[in-house]
Amino acid sequence: MIRVVILGAGNVAQHLYAAFLKQKSINVIQCYNRKGVLLHPNQNKNTITQDINLLKEADIYVLAVSDDAIKKVALQLPFKGKLVVHTSGSVPIEMLDNSNKKGVFYPLQTFSKDKDVDFSTVPFCLEAENEDDLKLLKDLAGSLSKKVYKISSEQRNVLHVSAVFVNNFTNHLFSVGNDICQEHNIPFEILHPLILETTNKITKMPPSEAQTGPAIRKDNQTIERHLNILSHASQKELYKILTKAIQSKYGKKL
Amino acid sequence: MIRVVILGAGNVAQHLYAAFLKQKSINVIQCYNRKGVLLHPNQNKNTITQDINLLKEADIYVLAVSDDAIKKVALQLPFKGKLVVHTSGSVPIEMLDNSNKKGVFYPLQTFSKDKDVDFSTVPFCLEAENEDDLKLLKDLAGSLSKKVYKISSEQRNVLHVSAVFVNNFTNHLFSVGNDICQEHNIPFEILHPLILETTNKITKMPPSEAQTGPAIRKDNQTIERHLNILSHASQKELYKILTKAIQSKYGKKL
Ligand SMILES: NC(=O)c1ccc[n+]([C@@H]2O[C@H](COP(=O)([O-])OP(=O)(O)OC[C@H]3O[C@@H](n4cnc5c(N)ncnc54)[C@H](OP(=O)(O)O)[C@@H]3O)[C@@H](O)[C@H]2O)c1
Ligand SMILES: NC(=O)c1ccc[n+]([C@@H]2O[C@H](COP(=O)([O-])OP(=O)(O)OC[C@H]3O[C@@H](n4cnc5c(N)ncnc54)[C@H](OP(=O)(O)O)[C@@H]3O)[C@@H](O)[C@H]2O)c1
Repeated sequence: MIRVVILGAGNVAQHLYAAFLKQKSINVIQCYNRKGVLLHPNQNKNTITQDINLLKEADIYVLAVSDDAIKKVALQLPFKGKLVVHTSGSVPIEMLDNSNKKGVFYPLQTFSKDKDVDFSTVPFCLEAENEDDLKLLKDLAGSLSKKVYKISSEQRNVLHVSAVFVNNFTNHLFSVGNDICQEHNIPFEILHPLILETTNKITKMPPSEAQTGPAIRKDNQTIERHLNILSHASQKELYKILTKAIQSKYGKKL
Repeated sequence: MIRVVILGAGNVAQHLYAAFLKQKSINVIQCYNRKGVLLHPNQNKNTITQDINLLKEADIYVLAVSDDAIKKVALQLPFKGKLVVHTSGSVPIEMLDNSNKKGVFYPLQTFSKDKDVDFSTVPFCLEAENEDDLKLLKDLAGSLSKKVYKISSEQRNVLHVSAVFVNNFTNHLFSVGNDICQEHNIPFEILHPLILETTNKITKMPPSEAQTGPAIRKDNQTIERHLNILSHASQKELYKILTKAIQSKYGKKL
């Protein structure tokens, strides 16, 4: 049985609490947050504290607080030598305080308040200072998910950059597609199945093998026609830069 | 009962044939292709012809041939006044021959040889010269899919540009993310669930509402750190341009 204390009451804290609750091997013995709120409707009030000095003895302390509060909260912990982990994708492990053993327990997924999370498919990126702590984190993550990875702080940074490309930037391209459709009174939902198929494909083959379209075909007639259709300078610029990027990537292969 | 003749034996012809076969209201009475191949293992050999002059009388002739063959094949048809449609996303309706009634029957999805297609979710973009023909095309498309749209040739062009953004360009960003991960020995699959969640989200809310990340937050420290991690000039350029595009789009709202 792994005894866990969760600090914070936001998205990640709540989803982790609900997930741990279902696991027999995990016991969330206490939760701390400034407002003293419950993390779950079924939670026993006695397991909540607003006073960080009243934290009980546990095997792992999970700091699921905002990135910029991690250092501050870690400093306030009233004990020494325990395993303290944060759940952030971008904060280095060193941000935690030296008086405790440091670790990272980062679930690589976006969480939002009202949406249930199926943790069995969520990748956990773990980091610890020694093998024993890593083993404990692996047991904890492994109780929720089959996808557990040992990832250094440096690798986590790299993952974060990649995530910006595949998530934030991709979302912006969806947004541009949506704008183009709206301008011409075309419902964007027509493109939903194509989008779902595109992403489905790259979970089955490397994205470079799935690349199609006028850019890689060097179909200059279509590229010109498309540029003429685009009415905004910023859309034209994105179209040109991405076409150039694709052509320089695959240029040698063609 | 709608009598259909399919011309061509590629991806689209084969998938359409298989889908029509399941419909009681549709009868594919004949198929034409240059090599005389079957479109389906269960197809009766007698329904195949290699001679375009032997085409039988039908309600709709579906030209599922390569974009640049549409004009040529349409010209070869040995009859007049029948409804002839092509299945292309980018060829204008006028490319079909004036001696017949023209139409477009464009299934907006990517098809590949070995992958089954669930047509019930495939959007059909239809165009015709008159209401009767459109009605017939709607009946034909409606027998396969719930998503049937009347789309002009001009709108189809716009859809094609949007598809380049949401499919081809997006795929390139996946590819960049993959490259970044590979360079640092991180399995790209860690990002698969995030990617699936991102696309799943935009089928439920407008992509502009789903935008997150350092660009929209104007988190310049993170942006600088990310640019330092990127080792290739082309990756840095894409990062900067897309960050700028996001910031200029949401700049006023913040
Ligand atoms: N959301 C995601 O999709 C996601 C995914 C993976 C990892 N993460 C990481 O998980 C961590 C938590 O994120 P989240 O989305 O759960 O954040 P959130 O919903 O904004 O919740 C933040 C929590 O931190 C608490 N907090 C902030 N400053 C504090 C302080 N000085 N002292 C004590 N508590 C403080 C807040 O308490 P109050 O309510 O009292 O302010 C709140 O309970 C972050 O490191 C984030 O990077 C988030
Ligand atoms: N694939 C997709 O994802 C997709 C999606 C939506 C729409 N479309 C459109 O559907 C149409 C067909 O695409 P596809 O993917 O099925 O293409 P495909 O797999 O490459 O097949 C093309 C077919 O056209 C035939 N053809 C080419 N030139 C011909 C000619 N001069 N005379 C007679 N037949 C000729 C080919 O016959 P041979 O084998 O004898 O060369 C072949 O059967 C295109 O307009 C395409 O834009 C494709």
